Amino acid sequence: MISPAQIQKAAEVLRGRIIRTPLIQSPALGRLAGADVRLKLENLQETGSFKIRGATFKILSERDRIGIEGIVAASAGNHAQGVALAAGRAGIRSLIVMPLWSSISKQEATRGYGGEVILAGHNIADCIVRAKKLAKAGMTFIHPFDDPLIIAGQGTIGLEILEDLPDADIIIVPVGGGGLISGIASAARAIRPDIRIIGVQASACPSAVEALDAGRSVIVDAKRSIADGIAVKQIGGIPFKVIREKVDEIVTVDEDTIAEAVLMLLESNKILAEGAGAVPVAALLSGAVRILPGQKAVLVISGGNMDTPLLDRVLRKGLTGHGRIMHFSICLDDVPGALASLLTVIAGTGANVLQIYHNRGGAALTIYQSQVELEIETRNFEHITQVLHALEQSGYKVDPEKNRI
Amino acid sequence: MISPAQIQKAAEVLRGRIIRTPLIQSPALGRLAGADVRLKLENLQETGSFKIRGATFKILSERDRIGIEGIVAASAGNHAQGVALAAGRAGIRSLIVMPLWSSISKQEATRGYGGEVILAGHNIADCIVRAKKLAKAGMTFIHPFDDPLIIAGQGTIGLEILEDLPDADIIIVPVGGGGLISGIASAARAIRPDIRIIGVQASACPSAVEALDAGRSVIVDAKRSIADGIAVKQIGGIPFKVIREKVDEIVTVDEDTIAEAVLMLLESNKILAEGAGAVPVAALLSGAVRILPGQKAVLVISGGNMDTPLLDRVLRKGLTGHGRIMHFSICLDDVPGALASLLTVIAGTGANVLQIYHNRGGAALTIYQSQVELEIETRNFEHITQVLHALEQSGYKVDPEKNRI
Repeated sequence: MISPAQIQKAAEVLRGRIIRTPLIQSPALGRLAGADVRLKLENLQETGSFKIRGATFKILSERDRIGIEGIVAASAGNHAQGVALAAGRAGIRSLIVMPLWSSISKQEATRGYGGEVILAGHNIADCIVRAKKLAKAGMTFIHPFDDPLIIAGQGTIGLEILEDLPDADIIIVPVGGGGLISGIASAARAIRPDIRIIGVQASACPSAVEALDAGRSVIVDAKRSIADGIAVKQIGGIPFKVIREKVDEIVTVDEDTIAEAVLMLLESNKILAEGAGAVPVAALLSGAVRILPGQKAVLVISGGNMDTPLLDRVLRKGLTGHGRIMHFSICLDDVPGALASLLTVIAGTGANVLQIYHNRGGAALTIYQSQVELEIETRNFEHITQVLHALEQSGYKVDPEKNRI
Repeated sequence: MISPAQIQKAAEVLRGRIIRTPLIQSPALGRLAGADVRLKLENLQETGSFKIRGATFKILSERDRIGIEGIVAASAGNHAQGVALAAGRAGIRSLIVMPLWSSISKQEATRGYGGEVILAGHNIADCIVRAKKLAKAGMTFIHPFDDPLIIAGQGTIGLEILEDLPDADIIIVPVGGGGLISGIASAARAIRPDIRIIGVQASACPSAVEALDAGRSVIVDAKRSIADGIAVKQIGGIPFKVIREKVDEIVTVDEDTIAEAVLMLLESNKILAEGAGAVPVAALLSGAVRILPGQKAVLVISGGNMDTPLLDRVLRKGLTGHGRIMHFSICLDDVPGALASLLTVIAGTGANVLQIYHNRGGAALTIYQSQVELEIETRNFEHITQVLHALEQSGYKVDPEKNRI
């Protein structure tokens, strides 16, 4: 469906126009999986995701057919930015229809790349309806994944992976609408028919899994996901055919594991991946994908456009989940020195105070008490137990009911 | 002092033992500087910094001279991890003396790489005294920078940069003890005598700047810095000589600019740099280093070992500083619906509530009032002004005295 020749042509068109992203080793993930694990870092791509590849190839291929009205696209995030930049570079006007809830930073980034932004509708489907209406009035609609030229553009990632690591055994790819994995599978299978291609979806939105089960592209009930970039309710018609033919398996990962994967990529690999970009790592963490000892696995980290406030939540959740942050509250007699004594006990355990909230006169307190909420940095759960023990020994009562320990 | 042949030898020894880190384009920084800006990503190096290079070359070069007592080093962070891993791989015992205040995560990482950790002293100087005492008892002391073999190992970064970008015009390098820049300058000048080499220090600890002024390595008064990895009070004797001969200039950057650089690398480049690793970016942001249009500049991002709690603070400070988080508190009449009405006004401005703290009965309140502290996500300072205006129009009084807006 997507010919190797077309992907080769895309690679020629894209040369010098996009970043040739690195394929780097991840010793930390390698130890975890007992294999040779490499990351294809499309989060380092311009606009922070692979989407610029397909958008650039599509727009340059059809330049002559695009009128002065320009192009229109519907997206909450990465496709918006890719299309805006690719169009701007080609000297073409772009209009992006984004849902009302799309993040402020993604709207600003899209404008920063030269796109005009319209907010419309509560979901992507509404945005597509609006975009197609504008297309009828003369604009050219750019679909995010159900388009052979878009897929051929994304397929250049497969060529680059096999240029850098010709003997890769397995490529693990995030799956939303299916454009990325269709391109990579088409490129890689043509060169290496025996290579394994595995797709990963959020279990909150398993559109490709259900499509394969049903034998056709179906609309799934989607829940909210930290991997919003792949929370696409229905995979594309072309991707469905390519996946059925060329992809070995699609697995799913849950929300907590995706958050843990984002945290691991940041702490161990020093890169920022968005939820969607981290699902291949989540598939290793959960054991959904297994690699044989000595095999070479490539994980496609598809994007890094994670909102900073959301990242902040992931960091805190991760730290708490690993016993590296401890939250608790304690009632103190409201006398001078009470807080200093408490903090001396905590300091003695080697824990470090991050935040403190001292509340005099809460509803559940007597007038001679104050309540202190503390957030402290700890080494692990064992250390938390030591802190609790030290507090108890000194006569403090930590109410587990009131605490998120 | 450090011969090109020795750096070549280091490159041969290190081949296959360390990660060949990528040199990637940064379109965002390129636009900012009006030039071609590339990042040498040593934060993607194993152990999260370049230190593994020097440590590995040193240990493998002197393997025969290291006794069964093993090696000892003094470090609060990156050198600790580099030495622990390099020693472990060579089958050699390592003991790392770390200051009492060294972060829990760096202690854990050092142990994770197989090093034994001793906590001793309130500063690195104390740790070095302790480590040298252990060295007298038979262990081999590994200095973090004042050693020709360590410097030769770090110099391999210079070779890789010029392999990947033979026509680089300028290389910008963080400077702490001076080992990294000495190695890079020795390697690069031998190949390209006309290349510019610029060092960057935190203005909180300008040890190389003051050494050049004084004509000898001096001890500076250091303040606390977010760039703790380069907060070294005195540069090494060998680095001093190399810097005087081969480095064009050393510039300094302040704390706020370093924090902004960390945030920019994360948000625009999707990589995590620690403060020390981000100083070359800070030097571009502040204008301390200027690049001519069309020139090719390489920024060495030396490491990414930023503690997550500190990263959290940098994220929040950056968001606040760019008008993307607004903190304020408001007094409400304590009647049903008061909070809902306030939140409706805020929702109407398009701002998003991140955190809310509702306090009934604070010291400054009447018994009919409650106080609400809010943290909301805003687009920019103009948006904050719009929110304030909307609150005022609806009769809410935001006391600027009490707020960090």
